[in-house]
Amino acid sequence: MDGGGTIMAQDATTLVAGTSSWLDALLDPEIDRALEELAPEAPLLPMMARYHLGLVDSTGQPLPEDERRAVQGKRIRPMLAVLSAMACGGSPSSAAPIAAGIELLHNFTLVHDDIQDRSPNRRHRATVWRIWGDAQAINAGDALFAASNLAVLATATSASLPLHTLVAEFNRMTIAIVGGQVRDLDFEGKGSVSPEGYLEMITGKTAAILRYAAWAGAIVGGADAVRAEAFARMGLALGIGFQIRDDFLGIWGTREETGKEVADDIRRRKQSLPILLLRAQATPDQQATLDALYAGDEIDEAGIATVLALLEDHGIRQQVQERVESSHHDAVTALASIGRGTAATNEGLTAIASLIERMRVRSS
Amino acid sequence: MDGGGTIMAQDATTLVAGTSSWLDALLDPEIDRALEELAPEAPLLPMMARYHLGLVDSTGQPLPEDERRAVQGKRIRPMLAVLSAMACGGSPSSAAPIAAGIELLHNFTLVHDDIQDRSPNRRHRATVWRIWGDAQAINAGDALFAASNLAVLATATSASLPLHTLVAEFNRMTIAIVGGQVRDLDFEGKGSVSPEGYLEMITGKTAAILRYAAWAGAIVGGADAVRAEAFARMGLALGIGFQIRDDFLGIWGTREETGKEVADDIRRRKQSLPILLLRAQATPDQQATLDALYAGDEIDEAGIATVLALLEDHGIRQQVQERVESSHHDAVTALASIGRGTAATNEGLTAIASLIERMRVRSS
Repeated sequence: MDGGGTIMAQDATTLVAGTSSWLDALLDPEIDRALEELAPEAPLLPMMARYHLGLVDSTGQPLPEDERRAVQGKRIRPMLAVLSAMACGGSPSSAAPIAAGIELLHNFTLVHDDIQDRSPNRRHRATVWRIWGDAQAINAGDALFAASNLAVLATATSASLPLHTLVAEFNRMTIAIVGGQVRDLDFEGKGSVSPEGYLEMITGKTAAILRYAAWAGAIVGGADAVRAEAFARMGLALGIGFQIRDDFLGIWGTREETGKEVADDIRRRKQSLPILLLRAQATPDQQATLDALYAGDEIDEAGIATVLALLEDHGIRQQVQERVESSHHDAVTALASIGRGTAATNEGLTAIASLIERMRVRSS
Repeated sequence: MDGGGTIMAQDATTLVAGTSSWLDALLDPEIDRALEELAPEAPLLPMMARYHLGLVDSTGQPLPEDERRAVQGKRIRPMLAVLSAMACGGSPSSAAPIAAGIELLHNFTLVHDDIQDRSPNRRHRATVWRIWGDAQAINAGDALFAASNLAVLATATSASLPLHTLVAEFNRMTIAIVGGQVRDLDFEGKGSVSPEGYLEMITGKTAAILRYAAWAGAIVGGADAVRAEAFARMGLALGIGFQIRDDFLGIWGTREETGKEVADDIRRRKQSLPILLLRAQATPDQQATLDALYAGDEIDEAGIATVLALLEDHGIRQQVQERVESSHHDAVTALASIGRGTAATNEGLTAIASLIERMRVRSS
């Protein structure tokens, strides 16, 4: 990145490290405001939303702050929106509504994903559908989507701010996410998904929201269309890199790093990128072995060891890490193009650089 | 209604009777445009949406026009939006985007309702979830919701048009619908829902969208906030009346009228308004009889006759029709307040009056 690389790195690291509550302080009032819109005459609706967001337990009692934070996670999507606004000279608070909208939208997709994937738990708590049933969980997600639009619409308008475009692109991004989820579910029945098809799928399902976060943050911060497009490229590369790193950790992450068993994604027979790359490169015999191991109801330790050995044989670990590096490179390049012509001291850009670096090396 | 009552009544009747394709000609291009936004890289997504909307069959082949019209029904919600715009002096085409958004939103709620209610068919066709499964049907609804926002956002902006408010109220209305659905599902497990609770539920689930259609149409047509509020009251009363008339027909409609068996709602043991009024007024013995009949897996002809006799004993048919008349009166009163000060010739108002009248007497 041109300029700014060494300046205020300490603050930037703090911004990204998630050890401070600066982001919560920005987001929580906006999220609260949007949740207050949820039909109070149907109290179950705000209750389910607040439960999913980690604000209350399943009886409606507030969650202790540490538990709440554990449920809410690092909030990387809204963080990227706020940092992008800052990088363009906007105030963090100007981006708070759009950041809250992004976080609410993300949570809408999680509530519906959990139904679709029959996931019993999320972040160590029962999923909404498991407590209130599929039908009400569908309602909870629908309402969070509506609330997310209201949060975005709370963005302070100004003559130069194209709120119309912000909201339209927000809904287009949602369609991209849903399209990614359509393809992901579609893949489940199929044996042969190409690595390219998989990358297209995660571009919608995972990366579109980070792309939007960076783009919309930049717009709110005052960027023109060309500059905002560079933020979009950066966010997209960041999102793809994050997902691929996730797939890497799902197989080669240690328990200390991920809190899960080694090779957890093999255990769950997830069709993640490493497995798709392996299938594309395996001999017919190896493919048959792989198919047999993945066709059963369970995979035992010997089976896991076989898959790990095949991955090793074909150098898949190396290939996946190279793809992480490549996405990292794309994100850094886009960021550099943004940085040119920017004042040397730019806390937002420095923090984004730190976020991008974390994508490459993150272990949790 | 003051003025206009006898003028152009013929045209107005044609507008509302659904025998002309004027509404389709307005809506279909806007709906098409919104559907084109549905992730083309996930072709199943636009396919499911088009199937549900009656544009194609489950293999993607276009439906013959008569079948398409049969699936699409009378499109009363978008019709009310367009007529309200016309009543305020706006052109029909100015309201086309918001009308299309309303129709798409309605269809999003239907796709999710069908999953939630396990409905196998809708308008004599298999529901989306039954063809593509619950998970993909959730996606289809989510995408239709996003597309509906895009349709609303296609409303031509002008200095005096508060597009921001239109979109925000659109999402608030969605929350009201979802809240109504939350309560409706919540009622299913409960024996004792009060008629008042039921009316609150349908105010969200059914009437909120007609309220919004009238209000938003008026705004697009150039109404100020006070005038638009009168349209909102009219739409709300119309929506409540429509639903109560629906409940009436579900028990006392003839087969010729509804295309269903007489007492179909009793057969399906639906907790509609007549049954809730009966339960509230029945003696303890009669309540026990009712509960026993509604507790089983099926209800036989003798059981249906028993319920019909109880309804007759308590004069419920009369009470329900009185509530239809009362909503009709509210809608007419609101319309009269709108009509005051309007030019005598107002095709939009006349057509709305005809729509309101149909609510009172409609049999299908």
